[in-house]
Amino acid sequence: MAAPAGERVVYLNGKFVPESQATVSISDHGFTHGDAAFDTMRTFKGKVFKLKEHVERLYRSCKYAGIDPGISQGEMSRLTDEVVERNKHLLGPSDDFWVTQRVTRGVPSARPGEKEQPTIIILCRPLPWERAKFYQTGISMRTSPIRRTPPQYLDPRAKLQNYLNQVMAEMLAKQGDPDVWSLLLDENGNVAEGSGYNFFIVRDGRVITSHERYVLGGISRQTTMEICQELNIPAAEMDFNLYDVYTADEAFITATSVCLLPVRSVDTRTIGDGAIPGSITGRILGTWSGMVGVDIAGQYLAHIKSA
Amino acid sequence: MAAPAGERVVYLNGKFVPESQATVSISDHGFTHGDAAFDTMRTFKGKVFKLKEHVERLYRSCKYAGIDPGISQGEMSRLTDEVVERNKHLLGPSDDFWVTQRVTRGVPSARPGEKEQPTIIILCRPLPWERAKFYQTGISMRTSPIRRTPPQYLDPRAKLQNYLNQVMAEMLAKQGDPDVWSLLLDENGNVAEGSGYNFFIVRDGRVITSHERYVLGGISRQTTMEICQELNIPAAEMDFNLYDVYTADEAFITATSVCLLPVRSVDTRTIGDGAIPGSITGRILGTWSGMVGVDIAGQYLAHIKSA
Amino acid sequence: MAAPAGERVVYLNGKFVPESQATVSISDHGFTHGDAAFDTMRTFKGKVFKLKEHVERLYRSCKYAGIDPGISQGEMSRLTDEVVERNKHLLGPSDDFWVTQRVTRGVPSARPGEKEQPTIIILCRPLPWERAKFYQTGISMRTSPIRRTPPQYLDPRAKLQNYLNQVMAEMLAKQGDPDVWSLLLDENGNVAEGSGYNFFIVRDGRVITSHERYVLGGISRQTTMEICQELNIPAAEMDFNLYDVYTADEAFITATSVCLLPVRSVDTRTIGDGAIPGSITGRILGTWSGMVGVDIAGQYLAHIKSA
Amino acid sequence: MAAPAGERVVYLNGKFVPESQATVSISDHGFTHGDAAFDTMRTFKGKVFKLKEHVERLYRSCKYAGIDPGISQGEMSRLTDEVVERNKHLLGPSDDFWVTQRVTRGVPSARPGEKEQPTIIILCRPLPWERAKFYQTGISMRTSPIRRTPPQYLDPRAKLQNYLNQVMAEMLAKQGDPDVWSLLLDENGNVAEGSGYNFFIVRDGRVITSHERYVLGGISRQTTMEICQELNIPAAEMDFNLYDVYTADEAFITATSVCLLPVRSVDTRTIGDGAIPGSITGRILGTWSGMVGVDIAGQYLAHIKSA
Amino acid sequence: MAAPAGERVVYLNGKFVPESQATVSISDHGFTHGDAAFDTMRTFKGKVFKLKEHVERLYRSCKYAGIDPGISQGEMSRLTDEVVERNKHLLGPSDDFWVTQRVTRGVPSARPGEKEQPTIIILCRPLPWERAKFYQTGISMRTSPIRRTPPQYLDPRAKLQNYLNQVMAEMLAKQGDPDVWSLLLDENGNVAEGSGYNFFIVRDGRVITSHERYVLGGISRQTTMEICQELNIPAAEMDFNLYDVYTADEAFITATSVCLLPVRSVDTRTIGDGAIPGSITGRILGTWSGMVGVDIAGQYLAHIKSA
Amino acid sequence: MAAPAGERVVYLNGKFVPESQATVSISDHGFTHGDAAFDTMRTFKGKVFKLKEHVERLYRSCKYAGIDPGISQGEMSRLTDEVVERNKHLLGPSDDFWVTQRVTRGVPSARPGEKEQPTIIILCRPLPWERAKFYQTGISMRTSPIRRTPPQYLDPRAKLQNYLNQVMAEMLAKQGDPDVWSLLLDENGNVAEGSGYNFFIVRDGRVITSHERYVLGGISRQTTMEICQELNIPAAEMDFNLYDVYTADEAFITATSVCLLPVRSVDTRTIGDGAIPGSITGRILGTWSGMVGVDIAGQYLAHIKSA
Repeated sequence: MAAPAGERVVYLNGKFVPESQATVSISDHGFTHGDAAFDTMRTFKGKVFKLKEHVERLYRSCKYAGIDPGISQGEMSRLTDEVVERNKHLLGPSDDFWVTQRVTRGVPSARPGEKEQPTIIILCRPLPWERAKFYQTGISMRTSPIRRTPPQYLDPRAKLQNYLNQVMAEMLAKQGDPDVWSLLLDENGNVAEGSGYNFFIVRDGRVITSHERYVLGGISRQTTMEICQELNIPAAEMDFNLYDVYTADEAFITATSVCLLPVRSVDTRTIGDGAIPGSITGRILGTWSGMVGVDIAGQYLAHIKSA
Repeated sequence: MAAPAGERVVYLNGKFVPESQATVSISDHGFTHGDAAFDTMRTFKGKVFKLKEHVERLYRSCKYAGIDPGISQGEMSRLTDEVVERNKHLLGPSDDFWVTQRVTRGVPSARPGEKEQPTIIILCRPLPWERAKFYQTGISMRTSPIRRTPPQYLDPRAKLQNYLNQVMAEMLAKQGDPDVWSLLLDENGNVAEGSGYNFFIVRDGRVITSHERYVLGGISRQTTMEICQELNIPAAEMDFNLYDVYTADEAFITATSVCLLPVRSVDTRTIGDGAIPGSITGRILGTWSGMVGVDIAGQYLAHIKSA
Repeated sequence: MAAPAGERVVYLNGKFVPESQATVSISDHGFTHGDAAFDTMRTFKGKVFKLKEHVERLYRSCKYAGIDPGISQGEMSRLTDEVVERNKHLLGPSDDFWVTQRVTRGVPSARPGEKEQPTIIILCRPLPWERAKFYQTGISMRTSPIRRTPPQYLDPRAKLQNYLNQVMAEMLAKQGDPDVWSLLLDENGNVAEGSGYNFFIVRDGRVITSHERYVLGGISRQTTMEICQELNIPAAEMDFNLYDVYTADEAFITATSVCLLPVRSVDTRTIGDGAIPGSITGRILGTWSGMVGVDIAGQYLAHIKSA
Repeated sequence: MAAPAGERVVYLNGKFVPESQATVSISDHGFTHGDAAFDTMRTFKGKVFKLKEHVERLYRSCKYAGIDPGISQGEMSRLTDEVVERNKHLLGPSDDFWVTQRVTRGVPSARPGEKEQPTIIILCRPLPWERAKFYQTGISMRTSPIRRTPPQYLDPRAKLQNYLNQVMAEMLAKQGDPDVWSLLLDENGNVAEGSGYNFFIVRDGRVITSHERYVLGGISRQTTMEICQELNIPAAEMDFNLYDVYTADEAFITATSVCLLPVRSVDTRTIGDGAIPGSITGRILGTWSGMVGVDIAGQYLAHIKSA
Repeated sequence: MAAPAGERVVYLNGKFVPESQATVSISDHGFTHGDAAFDTMRTFKGKVFKLKEHVERLYRSCKYAGIDPGISQGEMSRLTDEVVERNKHLLGPSDDFWVTQRVTRGVPSARPGEKEQPTIIILCRPLPWERAKFYQTGISMRTSPIRRTPPQYLDPRAKLQNYLNQVMAEMLAKQGDPDVWSLLLDENGNVAEGSGYNFFIVRDGRVITSHERYVLGGISRQTTMEICQELNIPAAEMDFNLYDVYTADEAFITATSVCLLPVRSVDTRTIGDGAIPGSITGRILGTWSGMVGVDIAGQYLAHIKSA
Repeated sequence: MAAPAGERVVYLNGKFVPESQATVSISDHGFTHGDAAFDTMRTFKGKVFKLKEHVERLYRSCKYAGIDPGISQGEMSRLTDEVVERNKHLLGPSDDFWVTQRVTRGVPSARPGEKEQPTIIILCRPLPWERAKFYQTGISMRTSPIRRTPPQYLDPRAKLQNYLNQVMAEMLAKQGDPDVWSLLLDENGNVAEGSGYNFFIVRDGRVITSHERYVLGGISRQTTMEICQELNIPAAEMDFNLYDVYTADEAFITATSVCLLPVRSVDTRTIGDGAIPGSITGRILGTWSGMVGVDIAGQYLAHIKSA
C-alpha cells in the first residue's frame, strides 16, 4: 500500500502502510490494557542515535512484562532503519525524526489456550520543534503532588504503555499552564524524574541524578553520564531531594527529543545564579553536539525561525 | 457501514461499524498511554444490568483522569442500549452479552493548544462461558507476590486502561497454571482484590470485603452488599489479611461476567470445610438469580453442556 | 503600663502591656525551638466562642509536649475574657476579635536542674476581613507536593508553634499566587487538611472529613459535625483521597476565623456543578449564623464594603 | 545602647544591644511559627571555627525555607566576628564562646502583599562546661521511641527553629534521667542522629556515620570525616542500624560545643570492650585538638576544676 | 510414669509425664525454628476460664501457620481439663493455675516427603503472684523504641513461638528496671500492645483499645469488651497514639494471668489524675471478679501476704 | 554417656550425649520463645570451614539479642572441633558434616531476679545430599507473596531461632511443589534472600547481591565476594528488584550446605540463555572447589549415585 505523496509510512505487523491507515484493533491488549512496550529514539543527520541500546532496552521491557516480540533484536533494528529510510525524502536539509517502536501483547486468541500474536509498530514523526525556546530561557518546573509509581507495582525502568501516573502528575504540576514542566518525587520524597524526562542537578562541580531504581534508565541520561566521564566531570547516581534541588548550582533535564534542556527554576526558586545554561550544563550540551555533528540547540532554534 | 451477517456491530465515534473494522489510530492516547476510561457490564435477558450505575462510574473515572467524554451520561446510556439492540439478533434463547464502553483522551491535535477530541467505543461480546465449571468446583486462588498499585499513584477505583499491574500480578500468581486465580494484597499487606474481581470472606455469619479505598468499587460488589442487607446478613467493608482468609468459613469473588464464584482454596489452604458453595455464598447467588430472573450459574452450565 | 489610646493590650506573664511592647526573650524556648503550644479562637458579639473547648485543647497540647502552664484552665479562661474585655472599646459596632493564647516552655534556667518558668501570652487581633470575597466566589485549592507531618513525629492534633511543614506546603501550593489555598495529603496519600484549616466534602448528601488522626481536631470542624447532627445530615470522619475530592458534589473548609468557606475548585477541577455555596454547605453556614446570632458571611462582607 | 559592665551584647536587626534587652515581637513569625533558620558555632582561642562553612549552611537553610536574610554572606560573617570582638573582654584566659546566628521571616506586614522584613540576631554564650565529665566517662545513650522527622516533611539538613520532634524524642529517651543521651532512628529504623548531635560507630577499623539524607550535615561531622582522611582511617556515610551499634567496636557523637564525646553504652549494652575513649575515637579527638591548638577535652576539664 | 509427690505432670504426645522429664528433641521444629503455636489460659476455682475460646484461637494459629495438630478441638479441650485435674491436688484453697497448650510442627522426618508428626504439650503452672502489688500501685510503662512486627511478616493475631520481637522490645523499654512495663507501637506509630498484654485507655467515659489487626486478639481483651457492653460503657477498637495516651483519663492492660492491671503512668506522664484504679477500670475489674466468683486482685494480694 | 554404635554424639551444656537423648526442657526460652541464636557451618575433608567467622557471627547474634553464652569464642570453637572429632568415625571416605551451634537464653530461674543460665548445643549432621540434582538442572524459583521481616523488627543479620517468617514464605512460594525454591522480597519490593540462602545475579559481567541490611550476611555469600575479587570479577552489594532478576544474564544462590547452586528460572522466566551453570557462576564454583580441595558439586553427585 503506497502512501500518498507527503504522507509518512509506518511498519505495522509485517507491512508498510500510510500513517493515516495505521490502526490497531479495539481488542488489542495494547489498547484495552495498555499492555505494550515501546521505545523512542531520534535521528541525527538522518541516522538513528544509539539504535542498539534502544532496542536492547525495548527487549528488556518486553521480557519484564512477559511479552514475546517474536522477532530478533537484529530484525527489529533493521526494520527501524528501513522505516527511516522509507520516510527520509520527507526530511528537510537540517531536519531529523523522532522514531518509535511499539510491541503489544496482541489480540487475544478466540481459542482458549492459544497464544496471542504480538502487534509490532515502527513509526517516525517530526521532532517537537516548539520546545526550541527553552534552550534560551531554561524551563520552569513545579513539583507535582502526584508521585511516581514505585517499581514494585510497575517498574519505571520498563517503558510500558501505562502512562496515566505520569499524565496525571503532569496535569497537576502544570495546573493549566502549558509552559510549566513537572518534577515527580518517588515514594520516599526523593526526586524521581519528570513526565518523560530525567532530572539532574550540579553541585560543587558534581553532576548528580536519581538512582535508576525509581526512574527510567534514559539513553540520554546514559549519554550524559558518558560525556561527564569524558570531560572529567564527577557524576553519580544518588538519592537526593528538594533541599538539594533548591540549593543546587545548576539543573537540567534530559530527554530523547531535546537531548538536554537547562532548568531555570523549581517551585519558584531560581536555581543557582539563574544563568542559562549553567556552565557545566552548557559544556555537556556542547560536547554532545560535537559528538553527533549537529548543533542540537541550533537545529531547534533554526526550525522556529524558519516557521 | 453494514456488518456482514453474523458479525457484531460496534459504536465508534458516532458511527456503528462491523467489529472487524473497529480500530483506533496508533496515535490515539488511549493506545499510546493507556489513557482511557472504560466500564464493563452484562445483560440479563438482553437488558443491561445496572446501566445507570455503570455509566455514573465511567464518568467518575473520566473526571478523575481529566478526560471529557463530550456527551452526556444520558446519551451514553442510550447509545449503549442501542448497541445491544443492534446486536440482539445474534443472541441465542438463554444468551446474554458482555458490554463495554471506552472513552479515550483521543488523538493529540497537530495544532498546539488545540484540545483533542475523545474517542468513544461501545461494544458487546459473548460472556466467558468457559468459566462455568467454577460454579461447581469453586476457584483455587494464590496470593500474588505483586501487590495492587496504591491509590495515590493511580486510583484503583477509577477504571482506566492501565492494567499492567494486574496483568503481571496475575501472571505471577498463575505461574503458567491457567486454572489458578490471583489474589492481590495492598501496600500494607491487607487483601485488596483479584485481577478484575472483588474478594469476600464470610466469618461467623458475617460477610466481609476490602475497603473501597484500595480496590475498584465493583457494581457486583455493591449488589452483593445490597443482597446481604435484604437477607439480613451483616456485611461490612474492612481491612483484613491472610490470617482472616485462611481461617474464614467461606470465601467468594464477584465480577460482572459471573456475578459471583465460590472460592475453594487460597494458598493451598481449604477455606472452611470445603463445601462449594458455602451456605451464605449460595444464598447470595440464589437471591441474585431471583432478582434478575435468570439462574446465573445454570445459564453458564447450560452453555457448556450445549458446547 | 497603660497602652496608648487606640493600642491593644496583651496579657504577658502576669501583666497587661501595650501590644507594641509585648516581646519574648531571644532565649525563650518558644522562640529558639518553637517549643510552645497555642490556641486561637474568635468572638461573636464580643464573646469568645467555645472558650472552654479551646482551653481544654490548649492544655492537651501542653500535656502532649510536656509543658506545664503553671495556671489552671479556669484561670486561663478568666484571663482570656479579661483580655477581650480590656480591648473591647476598640471594637466597632458589628466587629469581633481573633483571640490567641500562647504557652512556651520559657527561658532555660541558668542553674542546671532548675525548672524553667513558662511564658504565657494572651492577645486579640482584628479578624482577617480581606477573606470576605471567598464567601461569594468560593476558594480555589491546589494539592501541595509537601505532605502533612505524620503524627508519630509530631502530632498535628497538638497545636504547637512548629509550623514550618505547613508554611512550606502552602508556599509550594500557592507558587506565588496568593489567592490559591493549599490542600495537604497525609503520608498515605489521603487528604489531611489545609495550612490552618480543615477540609470537608459532600457526596450523595453525606458530609465527610478526614480522620482526626492526621489533622488538628478543629473546634470549627467539631461545630460543623454538631450542626450536621442537628440538621440530620449524615456526617463522618473517614479516609478519603483525591478521587473522592474530584468527584464530590460540594466541598468546603472550616477555620476559626471564617467558620466555613465554600470550595470552588481543586486542582483546576470544578467541584460538583460549581454552585457557591453548595446547598448543604449553605445550610451549615446558615445554621451556624443562627446559632451565634451573627450573619457570619454578612459580617465579613460588610467590613469589606465599609473599607 | 551600652551594655552594663559584664553583660554580653547581641546583634539585633542592625544594632548591638545588651542581651537582657534582646527580644523579639510576639508577632514575629520566628516565634509564632518557629519560622526561622539558625546556625551555631564555637570559637577556638577566641576565633570562630569554620565560620564560612557555617554561614554557607545558614544560607542554604534560608533558601530551603524561602527566607531572604537581606544581607550578604560576607556581611553576616563580618557581623559575627564583630559580636565576638565586642564580647571578648568577658572571656577568661583559656575560655571560648558558643556563637549563634538566627534569621526569622520577621513580623508580617500589616499591609497585605507587602513583604515582611527578616529579623536577624547574632549572639554569643558560654560553652556548656558541665559536659566535661563525659570526656572521662563516655556517654550513656538510649534509643528514643520517637523517630526523626523524615526529610520530605521538613528536611533535617536545614537548621530551622522547629525542634519539637527532637525535644520530645530527648524527653522520652531520658525519661527524667538527665545523664542519658538520646539516639533517634529514622523512618526505616536506621540510626539517624541525637537531639542535636551526630552519631558515629567504628567497626573493624572503619568509621561509619549516617547518610546526610536523614540528619543534619554537621560541621563537626564534616571535620571528623576530614580528620579520618588525614589519618588514613577509612570513613563512610551509610545506612546502619541497632545491630551495627550493639556490635560496634567504638562509638562517639560529634557536636559543635564539645567537638566529640565517646559513647560508653547504648541501650545498656557496653560498646566494644568499654574503653573510654576507644583508640580511633581518641586519635580523632587528639588530631582535632592539634588542628585548633586547643586541648579540647582538657579545656572542658579545666573549667570544671576551676568551678 | 508417675510424678514424684509434689511435682506437676505434663501431657506430652499422648503421655502424662513429670514436668522435670518433659523435654523436646533438639531437632524439633518448635525448638529450631520457633515453629509452634501455643495458647495460655488460667483457671478460676480450678476450672479453665473460656477454654473453648482459647482452643479455637489455638487452632486458628495452627491453621495460619499450616500446622496440623492431628487431634480435634474437642480432644484438645478434654486433655486440657485432664491436665488440670491430674494436678489439682497441688492447688491451695484459694489457688489457681496458669495453663498452656503447645503444638509444634514436630521433628522432620528422616525420609524425604514423609510428613512430620506434631509435638503436643499441655501443662499447668502457678500464676505470677509477684505481680500482686501492681493492683495497688498501678503499672508504670515506657514506650519501646522497638515496634511490633507488622502482620504481613508474621501475624500478631496468631500466637506463635516466635517471640524475639517482643522479648527485645521489652528489654529496651525496661533498660534494666524490672518494674517498668513495655508499650509497643505499630509500624504507623499507633499503639499496638505490650510484650504479652493488651492496652486500653479510657477517655470521656469511653473505653478504647487497638484494632485487632496489629495485636493479639486477647481473650481477656474480649472479656473486657463484653463487660463494657454489659455495663453500658461504650467501647471500641480504633487506631490511637501517644497523644491519646498522654491525655487519657485512665489506662489499663489486660492479660490472662492478671486479667486487668491499672496503669499509673506512661513515659513519666501521670495518666489522668493518677487515681488507682480509675473509676471505669475499677468497675470492669469488679464486674469480672463477680462473673468468675473470685476477687481477682484480692486473690493475688492474699498470696503475697501469705508468702 | 556413651552413644550406641553408629549414633552421633551431641555437646549439650557441658556434656557429650547420644543425639537421641539430646533434648531441651519445655520451659527453655529457646523453645517457648524461639529465644536462641545459632549458626550453621560445614566441613570440607572433615574440617570446619571458616569456623572463626561463624563463631564471631554467632556471638554477634547473641550480643544483638542480649544473650550471654557464658563461654569464650575460643572455647566455643574448641568444642565445635571436638564434636566433629568425636563423630568423625561415622564419616565415609569423601563425606562431610553439617555442623550447628545453638545458644538459648535458657530456663527462667524460679527465683525472681536470678539470671537464667544459657543452654548450649553443638551437633553435626549429614549434608543434604538430595540436593545434588540441582547442580545439573539449576533451581527453579518463585517470588513469595510473604516478604522478609524488616530489620527494625528483628534483624535478619542476627541468626535467631525465630524462623516462621521464612517458613511461611517458603510454603507460599512452593505451594506444595517441593522442587520450587522461594525468593523473598524486602519491605520495599527489592530482592532480599531465600528461606535460608542468599541470592545473586550476574549482569554484563558484574556479580550483584542484596545489601546485607535486609539479609543474613552469609559466610558463603562473603566467600563468593572474595572469590570474585580474586578472579577480578566486579562484585557489589546493591538494591535490585525483579526487573533486574528477569533481565539478568545468570543467577545463583549461596548456602552453607551446597556452597552455590545455579538458578534456572525465576517466576517461569528463564534466566539469560538458560545455560547451567552460567559461565561466571561456573567459574566461582570451580574456584571454590579448588580453594577447599573438594569438588563440591562432584561430592554431592557422587553421594546420589552411590545411594
